Amino acid sequence: MRSLLILAALTCGVSLAQECKPSALNIPEAKYPCIYADNRVLFRVNAPDAQKVSVRIGGQDFDMTKGPDNIWSATTTPLVVGFHYYTLHVDGAIVADPSTMTFFGGGWENSGIEVPAPDAEFYSAKDVPHGHVDQQRYFSKVTDKWRRCFVYTPPGYQASTKTKYPVLYLLHGWGEDETGWYRQGHVDLIMDNLIAAGKAKPMIIVMDNLNATKPGESATIFAARGMVPAPAPAPVPPPAPPQMGRGRGPAFQLSTFTEMMLTDLIPTIERTYRVAPGRENRAMAGLSMGGAQTFSTGLQHLEEFAYLGGFSGSCGGRGGFDPKVSCGGAFADPAAFNRKVKVLFLGIGSVEGPGTKNFSEALTKEGVHNVYFESPGTAHEWLTWRRCLYDFAPRLFR
Amino acid sequence: MRSLLILAALTCGVSLAQECKPSALNIPEAKYPCIYADNRVLFRVNAPDAQKVSVRIGGQDFDMTKGPDNIWSATTTPLVVGFHYYTLHVDGAIVADPSTMTFFGGGWENSGIEVPAPDAEFYSAKDVPHGHVDQQRYFSKVTDKWRRCFVYTPPGYQASTKTKYPVLYLLHGWGEDETGWYRQGHVDLIMDNLIAAGKAKPMIIVMDNLNATKPGESATIFAARGMVPAPAPAPVPPPAPPQMGRGRGPAFQLSTFTEMMLTDLIPTIERTYRVAPGRENRAMAGLSMGGAQTFSTGLQHLEEFAYLGGFSGSCGGRGGFDPKVSCGGAFADPAAFNRKVKVLFLGIGSVEGPGTKNFSEALTKEGVHNVYFESPGTAHEWLTWRRCLYDFAPRLFR
Repeated sequence: MRSLLILAALTCGVSLAQECKPSALNIPEAKYPCIYADNRVLFRVNAPDAQKVSVRIGGQDFDMTKGPDNIWSATTTPLVVGFHYYTLHVDGAIVADPSTMTFFGGGWENSGIEVPAPDAEFYSAKDVPHGHVDQQRYFSKVTDKWRRCFVYTPPGYQASTKTKYPVLYLLHGWGEDETGWYRQGHVDLIMDNLIAAGKAKPMIIVMDNLNATKPGESATIFAARGMVPAPAPAPVPPPAPPQMGRGRGPAFQLSTFTEMMLTDLIPTIERTYRVAPGRENRAMAGLSMGGAQTFSTGLQHLEEFAYLGGFSGSCGGRGGFDPKVSCGGAFADPAAFNRKVKVLFLGIGSVEGPGTKNFSEALTKEGVHNVYFESPGTAHEWLTWRRCLYDFAPRLFR
Repeated sequence: MRSLLILAALTCGVSLAQECKPSALNIPEAKYPCIYADNRVLFRVNAPDAQKVSVRIGGQDFDMTKGPDNIWSATTTPLVVGFHYYTLHVDGAIVADPSTMTFFGGGWENSGIEVPAPDAEFYSAKDVPHGHVDQQRYFSKVTDKWRRCFVYTPPGYQASTKTKYPVLYLLHGWGEDETGWYRQGHVDLIMDNLIAAGKAKPMIIVMDNLNATKPGESATIFAARGMVPAPAPAPVPPPAPPQMGRGRGPAFQLSTFTEMMLTDLIPTIERTYRVAPGRENRAMAGLSMGGAQTFSTGLQHLEEFAYLGGFSGSCGGRGGFDPKVSCGGAFADPAAFNRKVKVLFLGIGSVEGPGTKNFSEALTKEGVHNVYFESPGTAHEWLTWRRCLYDFAPRLFR
């Protein structure tokens, strides 16, 4: 009897350990990809006549093998928690996995998978009041095109008629678009949860597309992908965030966005939404290239912004720091800077390298007040940036 | 000299005739697929090691050939104007084209292409006041799950504080979701243009997901796809719209949606938005399976709705019509029906067959007032449904 019980317990243990749960980002009813308790992922693909099929995720390639049911499959090594883009390679064609929802990243409609994080609560839907995410169209005189952004309005915005709210302008990264923060980033759930807990002030969040070109300017961000006549979107690592004043990066792109933001976007938002006026009610942040854009726009226009956040991207973090010339000399007078900027936030994933931490320490040494935030165990991916927002938003508009 | 001019004119003529314009739905900077003036489409795919590559669009397969640059290409015959889903087949794998944006249809993230229509103006962004599309999350007690819908609010909604608006509930089709009307359908642009022209009353439009299952119920809509262990989404034609009272179709699915809509969705909308009360301010419409859902929900609840629209889907259109039993007997008393229902709208694409026209004529013969609308030259696709909305919306709330 005792050995039977032990056998039952062992069997049960094995079956629990081997349970593979469908990714939350699968298309409805799809059982694969699925995730084991130890964060290995099983992918399965139907490609009956292919010679070679593989999956690329987290910087690694995993060859798939064809089973007796004609289905190709591969199980990865344990993955880092959070959201990952990934690609299938079918006889040399780089395509999205038809079993998952797609997310605009790397310049195309990429596959996405979510490895459940231990702290996933903070970006989960809970029984709290929910805000809205609006699609806002507007015509940009600077780019001579129709554009759109998404706008988070906090719970209570619609019911109230007089309350005015401060605004955070929040940017995606290279190869992404204005859908990134609300689809990959879960911006509304993070804010709903923070506001319900009394941890963040109710605010409006504007998510625009950082690609802005005037007629005749080329879109450097996508040209960087090396697009071929028949575009097969290879996942290219994000380019190094440009450093201002050092002749690197797509400087004109940064300045066109700045001009568009000040001329078209901010006036559209302030005309359309109930916005509290002035720089002390205006923040800007972004991830990766969006962090570089934030520092480019923000440091040159401190008359417009009192809060700046760089999530895995800013104006520093590589090479030496010279307060007189780095970041366009924005930190040359620390006391003046500290009077103007109420929060300067630098966030990073712990496995992204020490550049951001070094930059923060160099700023601190020069007397520039700043907040350094490190997401444990994550890389240049969306869980880092969700956590950055979760830490950054409560510091705003105090 | 004269022959040189003729040569130049000829060359120019050839190059104009051969100009291939990128589809508006391509990813940024992608030149392919592109569309010739005669609506043939050129597809190009990078699949260097594949043995066989083809593209399937509009019910036809086009084999691709590999060029000297190692890129596979195919040019279709002239396509019908409007939006089409399409798939690539790479050595048996059915995948989305990495060069285009994807659209949820057929149960997965499908490729989309837009062949410019001569009447595209009505769903194009113009210099008119623009409404918003909101993401609305809510918890459904009936399904015991968080759900979301999108809500169009007309221009002026945010600026006004007292005006109440009538509401149209608008559903997608089989294998699509709540994003369909605002992404494939351009609902906001159609309404912005109609309202600016004074042709439609300002109204709120609620776009929910017609999939609603209680715990334990299976999602018949996706099961219909014949999903395999490694889902390779084959584009399955939409199932026949169920006919009420004849034992066909996923009847329980229809009734769960109805229960969810009346218990959870409508109260959420009426609590959250400034909604004019009562059935005469409430309309319901949908396309294909969403039209079937509309007639199922609406005809059983005429105390809730005064306007009903079926776009390529309703409760009739196949087989004979018997007013006593067809559509659950909803038309058994035409005079009573006419007093209650202010507009009964039946729309269809002209190449979808005569079923809907026959149904409309049978209703008319019985004395049931109805509007029949036919989209010229289009099939069971989104241009039909955009045109249906454009004809239907001006008839509402008069």
